[in-house]
Amino acid sequence: MLLQLDPAATVPLYRQIRDQIRQLITSGALGVGDRLPPSRELAQRLGVHRTTVANAYADLTADGWIAGHVGRGTFVSESPQAIHPERGRGASALPPYTATLENGYLWSTLFADQPADDPLDFLMADVTAAADRRVISFTTARPADELFPVEEFRRATSEVVRRDGRTLLQLGPSDGYPPLKEFLRQELAREGIQATDRELLITNGCQQALDLVRKVFLRPGDTVLLENPVYPGAIQTFNGGGVRCLGVPVTETGVNLEALETLLNQQRVRLLLLTPSFHNPTGTTLSLDARKRVLELAARHQVPVVEDNIYSALRLRGRDLPPLKALDTHGLVVHLDSFSKVCFPGLRVGWLTASEPVIERLRVAKQATDLHTDQLAQAALAEFGRRGLLTKLIKRARTLYRARLERLEAALAVHFPEGVTWTRPEGGMSLWVTLPAGLDAGALLYKARERQVLFAPGRFFYFQAAQPNTLRLSFPCVKEKQIEQGIEVLGGLIKSELRQRRPAERNTRRRARVALV
Amino acid sequence: MLLQLDPAATVPLYRQIRDQIRQLITSGALGVGDRLPPSRELAQRLGVHRTTVANAYADLTADGWIAGHVGRGTFVSESPQAIHPERGRGASALPPYTATLENGYLWSTLFADQPADDPLDFLMADVTAAADRRVISFTTARPADELFPVEEFRRATSEVVRRDGRTLLQLGPSDGYPPLKEFLRQELAREGIQATDRELLITNGCQQALDLVRKVFLRPGDTVLLENPVYPGAIQTFNGGGVRCLGVPVTETGVNLEALETLLNQQRVRLLLLTPSFHNPTGTTLSLDARKRVLELAARHQVPVVEDNIYSALRLRGRDLPPLKALDTHGLVVHLDSFSKVCFPGLRVGWLTASEPVIERLRVAKQATDLHTDQLAQAALAEFGRRGLLTKLIKRARTLYRARLERLEAALAVHFPEGVTWTRPEGGMSLWVTLPAGLDAGALLYKARERQVLFAPGRFFYFQAAQPNTLRLSFPCVKEKQIEQGIEVLGGLIKSELRQRRPAERNTRRRARVALV
Repeated sequence: MLLQLDPAATVPLYRQIRDQIRQLITSGALGVGDRLPPSRELAQRLGVHRTTVANAYADLTADGWIAGHVGRGTFVSESPQAIHPERGRGASALPPYTATLENGYLWSTLFADQPADDPLDFLMADVTAAADRRVISFTTARPADELFPVEEFRRATSEVVRRDGRTLLQLGPSDGYPPLKEFLRQELAREGIQATDRELLITNGCQQALDLVRKVFLRPGDTVLLENPVYPGAIQTFNGGGVRCLGVPVTETGVNLEALETLLNQQRVRLLLLTPSFHNPTGTTLSLDARKRVLELAARHQVPVVEDNIYSALRLRGRDLPPLKALDTHGLVVHLDSFSKVCFPGLRVGWLTASEPVIERLRVAKQATDLHTDQLAQAALAEFGRRGLLTKLIKRARTLYRARLERLEAALAVHFPEGVTWTRPEGGMSLWVTLPAGLDAGALLYKARERQVLFAPGRFFYFQAAQPNTLRLSFPCVKEKQIEQGIEVLGGLIKSELRQRRPAERNTRRRARVALV
Repeated sequence: MLLQLDPAATVPLYRQIRDQIRQLITSGALGVGDRLPPSRELAQRLGVHRTTVANAYADLTADGWIAGHVGRGTFVSESPQAIHPERGRGASALPPYTATLENGYLWSTLFADQPADDPLDFLMADVTAAADRRVISFTTARPADELFPVEEFRRATSEVVRRDGRTLLQLGPSDGYPPLKEFLRQELAREGIQATDRELLITNGCQQALDLVRKVFLRPGDTVLLENPVYPGAIQTFNGGGVRCLGVPVTETGVNLEALETLLNQQRVRLLLLTPSFHNPTGTTLSLDARKRVLELAARHQVPVVEDNIYSALRLRGRDLPPLKALDTHGLVVHLDSFSKVCFPGLRVGWLTASEPVIERLRVAKQATDLHTDQLAQAALAEFGRRGLLTKLIKRARTLYRARLERLEAALAVHFPEGVTWTRPEGGMSLWVTLPAGLDAGALLYKARERQVLFAPGRFFYFQAAQPNTLRLSFPCVKEKQIEQGIEVLGGLIKSELRQRRPAERNTRRRARVALV
């Protein structure tokens, strides 16, 4: 099998391997049933790390080109593309045209753009869908549903339908269901945010709030600043379509202010998105001084600041800090929040608070997007909140999550080897781990998965300069005993990876340019 | 007051008047408290119709430049812009810069685009919000909420929360709540549409379905064909952002097929949006032959067809016709539907059916937009449907709407003068009226509003070549007695308008070019 790699090319090595093997298959050089070399062997021949070959093989497997058979090896499939005919139409060198024809329609050419391809996508789909009780999953930052007071929610919902059914079932106002807005204004006031009814808009959770912000503020060619790493939903929303995302690095004390200032000086920035409290994925928090400094910088550069406040109610230790919006004397903060982390993510309800002209624009965009947010959910949540059940639930969640965070930190201290570091979140749902340079959290996930332990590799949270040696551990949904077990497994895998890693790394460094076999 | 009009300019006459009066105020030529000539008088002096001046005055009033005082006349306001500081920042000749500064932020320059300005916008906002029982409103195409079986809905909701609360309150799959998808697949099968689970995506109603279709299929520079006139939400979604909307005229038998064929031959069309059954706003329906012809044309030109099926269940007379999707042998139809017209628009739940690669793209876009549709609403509707309550509600709605449509047609025949024509809908919620050429439905609305009768002027449904002499009458929410009264009022106003109109019209025609006083 003749492969020719160029480490200096912008195309990653695993993609070069993948595309060349695919070409060998389509050209007939590799036939159905032909055996591929084991990944370890091919890696050695090519002088690359085994993970690189494993990633290429994973992609080819997912697209149906090859299939692995336990104990026998990996073979060219009988019917390439048979498994996932719609996959593999990305920006690769050799799109398998025949597979995209559906009754004469070449759908891939009818879409506006090509989706980004990630070899771990299929794994993550699998991971987030995992409902298997034997699996220990640190993957998802969502509330622990064992806390859900389902019966109390049912009664609140039933009551509100009885009382206001005809109104809430009919088409409603695009800015939101009035009783929910009233409830939220009171909640906002407790956080130091005075919002009039016209400064508040209900959305379908934070994800839609971001989508609306993009629609209203950004045109192709505009530049937006995001933390890097950041919530993947923000990357999906802002990156692409001609908008330029620039990353502000995140340190242990939140976004790096010097980098932020430099970027604001150097670039014509249209928007800045920040999560000051318990940033996802790193769990870091901006100090009060840093918050004030961010607002100064934004005001000087006339840049609206979008504040993602979604984790703010989940402080697990330390002192409460005011949100940016409460410190915002210039009216430049667009504050967004949601019920998804504090109670029920299955109900898609969030809200935006900003100056009246901004809310009016967002409201018009909301109306054009989906008329208004579901009123049954809005009404049920308003009643749930009005009865004090939300406050009670948040209190119980904080107690539970605090215990789980502490257990996680204790386990990390015991099981993770020297050279591994992690953040110390004061709240939220996630903690950020940095492995020694040279380790790849993606490769670690493949192995951890075999041991029934899952986490989110750091690369999903970067939109530039991804650090492959990072990963996110989310703790709210993992029981204490499982935390201990899971971290022990991960610690063991990291240690073994560290032992194997060093020689290979030296090997890679010696070869600056690879061209053979 | 010296105004200089140019009837040959692309800027409409009312805008010329509005902008020039605004300039007179900002330049100081007109001072605070100065009286403006009555609209009838100014119209006579300028040789334009009184409506033109009334529209200019309405705009200036809405923006706070002038104010009318009953019995005294119209005066320059004490504080221009005081009433609606955020208005009037459009593309007008003289943007009032000071009014847009909010704590030093010039918000208007921070938004991605400028909203379109319509002098009737403020009136329509008022109109759609009207909950006044004395008002007879033919404005909104929404279900009659007097039919809502609130108590049965409450019991279905309560039961589903009891049974599946923990799951539906937790984050769910982006393609939809499985029991609802199952229910819908059975419903689709009854319409002749066989959809697998992977060919079905739940959305927040049709409006979001359109938004997702736009995101997935259209890039700046692309051309899309829409019926003209069309549902205003489709205009909001597709028009703008560099996408070119071309209109296919609608005749009494639905979209004009010759025009459609010509457009497909002449243009490189990316997408075609159609409402084959009970088109909004015209109420027209495509015959079976026409449906087949549309599919032939689309297949020949490889253009995906988006079929808006939202009114299809509301057939009030005549024989059922299969939706395009049921006739679609090429898999080129993207079929969208919703619960909003048949039961509860306050719950934002709709669905998309299309080929698997299309649904997969739409699903990814949906996830990036708002993760998934609210699960409480999805579960409640699934249970409501499963219990047979939806079928029962649709049956009752058809009986009621049929009676109201027949009453409307009878009243039109009695009260509307010769020269007025209207469509004969076989179903849906609306009927389309064409007034004699030269009459303006916008001007009629001002007068009708004084008499507590409301309707939707045709111009809101056009995105090009608006016919000002058209209007939409929606009947589901108007009680029979009110239908009779309302149409009598409108008929009277049209007759009186016709009497006044003719001399003025001749007058306008005589003057090809106006320049004075």
